[in-house]
Amino acid sequence: MRSDFALTKQLFDIPDGTIYLDGNSLGPPTKTASDQVSSLIEEKWAKLLIKSWNLDNWIDKPKSVGNRIAKVMGAKKNSVIVGDTLSIKTYQALYAAIKLQPERKIILSDSGNFPSDLYIAQGLIDALNLNYQLRTVKPEQIFESITSEVAILFLTEVDFRTGRKHDMIKLTKKAKEMGLITIWDLAHSIGVLPINIDKAEADFAVGCTYKYLNGGPGSPAFLYVAPKHLNNVDNIIKGWFGHTAPFSFNKAYQPASGINKMQIGTPPIIATAALEASLDILETVNIQDMREKSIELTELFIEETKRNCPMLKLISPICPYQRGAHLAFEFKEGYAVIQSLMEHNVIGDFRYPNLMRFGFNPLFICENNVLEASKILSKIMTSGEWNKNIFKIKSFVT
Amino acid sequence: MRSDFALTKQLFDIPDGTIYLDGNSLGPPTKTASDQVSSLIEEKWAKLLIKSWNLDNWIDKPKSVGNRIAKVMGAKKNSVIVGDTLSIKTYQALYAAIKLQPERKIILSDSGNFPSDLYIAQGLIDALNLNYQLRTVKPEQIFESITSEVAILFLTEVDFRTGRKHDMIKLTKKAKEMGLITIWDLAHSIGVLPINIDKAEADFAVGCTYKYLNGGPGSPAFLYVAPKHLNNVDNIIKGWFGHTAPFSFNKAYQPASGINKMQIGTPPIIATAALEASLDILETVNIQDMREKSIELTELFIEETKRNCPMLKLISPICPYQRGAHLAFEFKEGYAVIQSLMEHNVIGDFRYPNLMRFGFNPLFICENNVLEASKILSKIMTSGEWNKNIFKIKSFVT
Repeated sequence: MRSDFALTKQLFDIPDGTIYLDGNSLGPPTKTASDQVSSLIEEKWAKLLIKSWNLDNWIDKPKSVGNRIAKVMGAKKNSVIVGDTLSIKTYQALYAAIKLQPERKIILSDSGNFPSDLYIAQGLIDALNLNYQLRTVKPEQIFESITSEVAILFLTEVDFRTGRKHDMIKLTKKAKEMGLITIWDLAHSIGVLPINIDKAEADFAVGCTYKYLNGGPGSPAFLYVAPKHLNNVDNIIKGWFGHTAPFSFNKAYQPASGINKMQIGTPPIIATAALEASLDILETVNIQDMREKSIELTELFIEETKRNCPMLKLISPICPYQRGAHLAFEFKEGYAVIQSLMEHNVIGDFRYPNLMRFGFNPLFICENNVLEASKILSKIMTSGEWNKNIFKIKSFVT
Repeated sequence: MRSDFALTKQLFDIPDGTIYLDGNSLGPPTKTASDQVSSLIEEKWAKLLIKSWNLDNWIDKPKSVGNRIAKVMGAKKNSVIVGDTLSIKTYQALYAAIKLQPERKIILSDSGNFPSDLYIAQGLIDALNLNYQLRTVKPEQIFESITSEVAILFLTEVDFRTGRKHDMIKLTKKAKEMGLITIWDLAHSIGVLPINIDKAEADFAVGCTYKYLNGGPGSPAFLYVAPKHLNNVDNIIKGWFGHTAPFSFNKAYQPASGINKMQIGTPPIIATAALEASLDILETVNIQDMREKSIELTELFIEETKRNCPMLKLISPICPYQRGAHLAFEFKEGYAVIQSLMEHNVIGDFRYPNLMRFGFNPLFICENNVLEASKILSKIMTSGEWNKNIFKIKSFVT
């Protein structure tokens, strides 16, 4: 039986009448998020106080929630840790990868990668004064650029602009054959695309949880380390929670065993509670069903837009299997159009200089939403009402 | 008029009958914490969705809440940023300090520093392959060890074990005369001790917010950078929120101006809401009054314990001005005693191998609490009832 998306839609707290096509940037809250966080504060923190670290298993949250995320990405138990931000987890993964492959001096990425990933990589090279080169090629040149002189393949599976999806299995396979270490950023894929990190035999993966995982603004990130590396990886930031016995307060750092060694500081317990509320819902559906449903939704939106708004140019791949769950359209005054859509309670987002993005998370977006949003978009484009918003540029949407 | 601590005590959510002497490890929630977090989730995140980044000023939270903390520590506006964990903020401060003082090769700290601070420092030296030495001396030798060959003075103001307080003004003054860069960890002082970081002319300060600032388990940390350094400091971890224009998605990293450059990833908005609820209360009192009150409370507890429990050896400084707001007593079976106290709803904590710690935050601890806790401790010690808890060692209290 196919997953019940009519049911999951009821479990999200989105204003009536709003069509939220920006879950790829910040997922909406579940209806239980507020209660679960309140309950953590009132029933655990307030009642058990410091004892909650043991009695409510706070101490294990980074790993126990990591294990829930591991399932979502096809990873083995005890290979994922939750905490910090995606920037930090990426920084750790890159350093660990460099230590595993010290003979070569090239980090390969693509020009469509999320800029922050590239900042982190170049920043690490500079700070450590490494004789490394960050080589970025066009996404379509990645396959041919995977050669035996490259140390690390560092890619985001789904391009935050275009939605173009890399073939993780194929690229990781070639990388492995050529002796590279692979790091996958799953920010724009986890929670909506089937991922089998174990089958792909990737070495590292990172991601945030505030997009398709609906963990909330600034919710903690995650880091996956392939089990075969866990004994050898080195954590560049040696905080006490990565220590084998943080509360023995030894003078010398001794790394924890397993994935726990990739922890850094005190884990963000309150933020993690909101994330857990969302995982409760995600775990009721089949991720393959989500993929199919999100393809149906994106195909429908493309079809409607093509027919009604020929002036909008789709820059996402035509083939649904080559893209993630969001679509991007080029239009010179895209910012103004996005503003007009918001005035009609259709929320997409804009990426400088001319991209309109729309995300389709089947957990809370249905066909009717797509048809309605398409209709409104068509009206806005046909009437030219977006013209009045041309001068309003100010956006922080992520 | 002295601050009204009878009033603030009413604003914390602590179980009736519980005397919480562990706010130095994890502060208790305020009664409004749950509502403020719920309101953020239900009124902002749910209703404004992605637009909250602008409309609810989420984008400014790291700096706006940083400014509230700046006031608590006597720092100028726009010199404190909130986010990440204390480990991360320490890592950033150390790197920035090294870059400001590259001629010398010694980081000076003391053997009473929080071990994680020392892990971070040694880990940074190792990861960057720096020709640096982390030199730790006894706390009382710090003053004489500040010489012109030392690059960085890196201290925690209040010792997490003994409560011994460094003289920040005096040590920073000498460090300045000798050309050192100073980094102060304020984890065990902020929110309960008067700090004047500006007057001290410290270069950097870091701290967590889950102790005397009552921000909640894993609440975000903070980093202070002296305004005179803001143009020159370098952020070792170059995440997008430290970029001057994160949402322009430029290929090249260009640091933000001012304290914003020390941000890394997406800020933890939900966790920050609980912290703000606590700052609301702290801002109603005078920090000098808190200091006086906490001294009265600790003096009273010492007096009672001296009289009734002579077998417990105070290892905190006798002079109240030389210690923070917690006390530590040595007792071979301290762990068992702490367990017995908990059975009577008096919560202190234990530090291996033999330390019992008790914290006195005047915001929610009053004289009656101290007298009652002393009475219970006395009973436990006199009756020997702690003996039954000798074998129960398991503690994660921080």
